[in-house]
Amino acid sequence: MDLVTLADIEAAAGRVAGTAVRTPLLPCPWAPRSPLWLKPENLQPIGAFKIRGAYNAIARLTDEQRARGVVAYSSGNHAQAVAYAAREFGIRAWIVVPKDTPVVKIEATRSHGADVVLSEVGQREAKAAEIQAETGAALIPPFDHPDVIAGQGTIGLEIAEDLPEADVVLVPVSGGGLISGVATAIKHRSPKTQVWAVEPELAADTAASLAAGELVDWSVADRNRTIADGLRSQPSPLTFAHQQAYVDGIVTVSEAEIRAAVALLAEKANLVAEPSGAVSVAGYLNRDLPEGRTVAVISGGNIDPAVFTEILAR
Amino acid sequence: MDLVTLADIEAAAGRVAGTAVRTPLLPCPWAPRSPLWLKPENLQPIGAFKIRGAYNAIARLTDEQRARGVVAYSSGNHAQAVAYAAREFGIRAWIVVPKDTPVVKIEATRSHGADVVLSEVGQREAKAAEIQAETGAALIPPFDHPDVIAGQGTIGLEIAEDLPEADVVLVPVSGGGLISGVATAIKHRSPKTQVWAVEPELAADTAASLAAGELVDWSVADRNRTIADGLRSQPSPLTFAHQQAYVDGIVTVSEAEIRAAVALLAEKANLVAEPSGAVSVAGYLNRDLPEGRTVAVISGGNIDPAVFTEILAR
Repeated sequence: MDLVTLADIEAAAGRVAGTAVRTPLLPCPWAPRSPLWLKPENLQPIGAFKIRGAYNAIARLTDEQRARGVVAYSSGNHAQAVAYAAREFGIRAWIVVPKDTPVVKIEATRSHGADVVLSEVGQREAKAAEIQAETGAALIPPFDHPDVIAGQGTIGLEIAEDLPEADVVLVPVSGGGLISGVATAIKHRSPKTQVWAVEPELAADTAASLAAGELVDWSVADRNRTIADGLRSQPSPLTFAHQQAYVDGIVTVSEAEIRAAVALLAEKANLVAEPSGAVSVAGYLNRDLPEGRTVAVISGGNIDPAVFTEILAR
Repeated sequence: MDLVTLADIEAAAGRVAGTAVRTPLLPCPWAPRSPLWLKPENLQPIGAFKIRGAYNAIARLTDEQRARGVVAYSSGNHAQAVAYAAREFGIRAWIVVPKDTPVVKIEATRSHGADVVLSEVGQREAKAAEIQAETGAALIPPFDHPDVIAGQGTIGLEIAEDLPEADVVLVPVSGGGLISGVATAIKHRSPKTQVWAVEPELAADTAASLAAGELVDWSVADRNRTIADGLRSQPSPLTFAHQQAYVDGIVTVSEAEIRAAVALLAEKANLVAEPSGAVSVAGYLNRDLPEGRTVAVISGGNIDPAVFTEILAR
């Protein structure tokens, strides 16, 4: 299987510059053990790293393809990312969401100018295929595509540039687009730096798969138990191959540890992180990870305000 | 009166690089009218812009002066800034705080390695002078010093570099060190950009002073009414002279508007801002300011967690 290359990611960096924020590394004087820096991707214009991959994938279309618009199925950060990126290019975007999606998420996607298309629950892919057939729009997948992986990998380039002497980089894992890109960039630019995945215990299909050496399937019902609603997907063969090639290890964290990390990031780092974005810090605080200069990627901040307030008020 | 120069600020930028985070400008797709970017100084390692001025002031001491340590009187962000900067230089810092300071603030300052010295309420300056006399330590004032102003001005340089076509920059004002530096940098680098001050209605001594053309005194009791506890100081002749020279206008905001801005920044920008840091956005949202590309400086994020939770839970 062809893996994404450093050159792919470097080219993506040129494309996303000016749309994705060049996030700084934030030193954490409050860190209890190994020195810690945060990579705050929750500060992207749509509140999550997904803008990088979506923008790169749309930029890689031909002018003719792009003119026909893009389609995506997602009710989360990928939906907003595709909508935002499409608006930057001045093209149409159709976002397919299941009927039971909370209205606040639909409004966020609509606010970026996308056409939100409701589908029956479980019928998102079929509906997206229908739109593709009708309009000729290009499908932008959330993680299972080399251009999406290359876009997310620009985070790894930035980390290697800002802290070339990093010992460990901690990355939330779900579908695996983020860690595939970051690990590819880090292992080529800064080979001594270890890349570790962090996953919720309640959606630990990637940990199980890496242990088994092959993709292990967890049921949707099982994966949906975690509060980290951005980490309920499973790797694809493509993202799993990147992880087998480049990821040094994986740890899992409990729901209580995730909540505590969200609260700590608000109090100590002045960042609003969603549970999915805070798992990296939960791993840093609670697991036996390699010592040394550590970077935790905070992948996003789109948390339900009621959930955030409840976590803070404990 | 000699004002700080662009060259002073450029030199300060070289000094603070590597200690102060080079904060990005964050675009705000949710902004209702004029396009808005945030300058998130709440992401500095001590949670506020003050690290820039404190570090620059300590860097400007002679080796001999610096070896004798530094002293400051503050219970807020300046205390943490001096403590943090002193540790970076490997020198001693004495921070004088009144006896009634909440223990959480004392712990934050101590965590950066400073000696916290308790004083009788209202006796901070006398106690600091005593320490100076005993130890030869250099006093680092919170705003009334050219080196401090030049350090804060590095924020203006970064704004002018990242968004040279900015039309308006909004800056919280209190003692005036921040806006003096920012306005000096902006007016020299990007003269068409307007710089506006934003101040709480309940501590509007700067607005009164600018209207009167001379410093107007508000009582401590009056100024202490605002929730924006970082904005309860008054300008000095030095910072007032900078404001008269370079600031285009000033607006005041209500307590309710400040609280709403804190909540909005958490929900839409994934940032924890302290009330003092959020006044710029409160001004943007609620006052009749010049149209166009607007930058709001978020000066800090050190909010009492209980106050933050209460604001979010409304």
